[in-house]
Amino acid sequence: MATTAISSGKLRGFMKLADESGRFKMMAIDQRGSMVTALAETLGIEKPQVKYDQVASLKTLITRILAPNATAVLTDPIYGHPYSITEIPRDVALLLAYEESGYVSEGVSENERLSNPIANWTIGKAQRAGADAIKLLAYYHPDASEATLQHQQDFVRHVGDECEKHDLPFLLELVSYAFEGTTKSLEFAKQKPDLVIRSVEEFTDPSYKVDILKLEFPADLKYTEEYQDRGFYAGESAYGLSEVEDVCRKLDAASTLPWVILSAGVDIEEFIENVKLATAGGASGFLCGRAIWKNVFQSYPDIAAVTQFLENDATTNFHNANAAAENALPWFEHRHYGGAENIRLERQSENWHEEY
Amino acid sequence: MATTAISSGKLRGFMKLADESGRFKMMAIDQRGSMVTALAETLGIEKPQVKYDQVASLKTLITRILAPNATAVLTDPIYGHPYSITEIPRDVALLLAYEESGYVSEGVSENERLSNPIANWTIGKAQRAGADAIKLLAYYHPDASEATLQHQQDFVRHVGDECEKHDLPFLLELVSYAFEGTTKSLEFAKQKPDLVIRSVEEFTDPSYKVDILKLEFPADLKYTEEYQDRGFYAGESAYGLSEVEDVCRKLDAASTLPWVILSAGVDIEEFIENVKLATAGGASGFLCGRAIWKNVFQSYPDIAAVTQFLENDATTNFHNANAAAENALPWFEHRHYGGAENIRLERQSENWHEEY
Repeated sequence: MATTAISSGKLRGFMKLADESGRFKMMAIDQRGSMVTALAETLGIEKPQVKYDQVASLKTLITRILAPNATAVLTDPIYGHPYSITEIPRDVALLLAYEESGYVSEGVSENERLSNPIANWTIGKAQRAGADAIKLLAYYHPDASEATLQHQQDFVRHVGDECEKHDLPFLLELVSYAFEGTTKSLEFAKQKPDLVIRSVEEFTDPSYKVDILKLEFPADLKYTEEYQDRGFYAGESAYGLSEVEDVCRKLDAASTLPWVILSAGVDIEEFIENVKLATAGGASGFLCGRAIWKNVFQSYPDIAAVTQFLENDATTNFHNANAAAENALPWFEHRHYGGAENIRLERQSENWHEEY
Repeated sequence: MATTAISSGKLRGFMKLADESGRFKMMAIDQRGSMVTALAETLGIEKPQVKYDQVASLKTLITRILAPNATAVLTDPIYGHPYSITEIPRDVALLLAYEESGYVSEGVSENERLSNPIANWTIGKAQRAGADAIKLLAYYHPDASEATLQHQQDFVRHVGDECEKHDLPFLLELVSYAFEGTTKSLEFAKQKPDLVIRSVEEFTDPSYKVDILKLEFPADLKYTEEYQDRGFYAGESAYGLSEVEDVCRKLDAASTLPWVILSAGVDIEEFIENVKLATAGGASGFLCGRAIWKNVFQSYPDIAAVTQFLENDATTNFHNANAAAENALPWFEHRHYGGAENIRLERQSENWHEEY
């Protein structure tokens, strides 16, 4: 096999994001909209009444207690970074989110979703601030209108170009959605494999310059018949387990890049199954937030109880997720790279420093 | 005490360069001129006959075996980085040298030294390549001509400005020299405390924007009477041990910034004494190369023997240096920072991402 040349910053970034064996065990604490919503519900107040400091200090506490379990922490530059940066250990990589939380539908169908950047934030700033990689969440439905598809594709391509310019790894998160009804339905569960795989087919095109894909589990175990004895089972089935395993393999076949699984806020029990099935299919690990720590909202604002939950149950959740990811495919073993022994620095020569 | 505000990139860089307790245990493998000289001597050839690949591959081997003992590795972008980058573990920070190896004396007295940048290399490139901090070696003699002083001061200030712009920690190495004769003399040993301390007084001026000083031991233990039973003793004394201890304290008083000790190629036995005395005086650790690994040249080109030396004696040297540095002052305990509890992100607020 020919050697695979990787640019210096991306190579070093990959090494930092994963553990020494090349497996990603990453924590997400970049939630903004969903965290404000959860805090408002817990406190019985309206979302605009949730204070910046409440969000920032909860993120700081979660980061302080859980980050040591992670190979990398994904946070946001608004609520997360300014107060949590000192809580991320030296050997845990820093991922910074680039997109504004949520989506807008202005100018397109109200059922379609446009992603946008955080105002007054740039990838150059992220790099100077110490980010080891950039994360972009793009909502994507392959059957959206041409205008929506174009907007999302252009946005991803812009971030790909900027990451190339700054030589930072680009981690693209793709999140599907329903044009009608809810994603928590038998009907959407049936659509999900197709939506996830078609989105992967789009954004693995080299023109997007993506390095790692952060993907939804490509099926819904709530609607998988073998799980009917589990607490998360929804009461009806879209498919059987062997079909789900097949979907994971098809996703892996479509993904010409290393990929990791996100949790989308499912319970930890279901997430562990997702990680096992995804890594058996070829995933290189996970980037998980709420499945590990979302029960903080059950105790909030009792900080002592929140702390106790984080130190005990949430830490156990993280250990269990890490154990499930031991089966992950090291990123450098993905066919895109072909093994650690085949990886070389791009332009490796005595002139590298001049040509870089 | 008031809180100390640190910019994001510098703060994250500091955290990565030091161990979790804030002590620097860093390895230098950025030697170029001195390594070519040593290889030529060992092989009995002229310096121009030493091949690029010989230097690069020896650096790669040293980095592979010794880097896991370090909190950070300093390498150079010419011989070191392109072939060693994959050998630096994910939890070991990367320092890149900015200066061209050696010095020139054009336009000034032949006894004076001017430092210059590596051609076609920039601090922006270093950041993109994954550097966690920038190192600059500047030769400095406080009694040099005005033109030489100005050149060196301007060069340091330029790097300080660039590091501020890219928000990378700036580690300045100051190396003194003799206008006449050799630095290996009783006379120079007597001058050394004054030279080192006056240089520190110059470059701690905030206009240089230095973050960490990498300093020579401010006396010469070869000329210290209490060491007359040691193998490194030169046969005559410039001072006694209590005077050396006093010099270390005076250096620390002059250094309004955290400082670390370099080895300048002394034997490991002497270097361990340097580290003990410097850290007792207030140093925050070391950045050491040859004292740990210089005996590779005794076995070169027998790579099996070189490897064995690195895995055994050199590793023991590193462990001993690390143990001696356990007494170092954590960087955040330096009076410039005033303790971890007083450190805050600069512009820490909900507008940080906009103002940064």
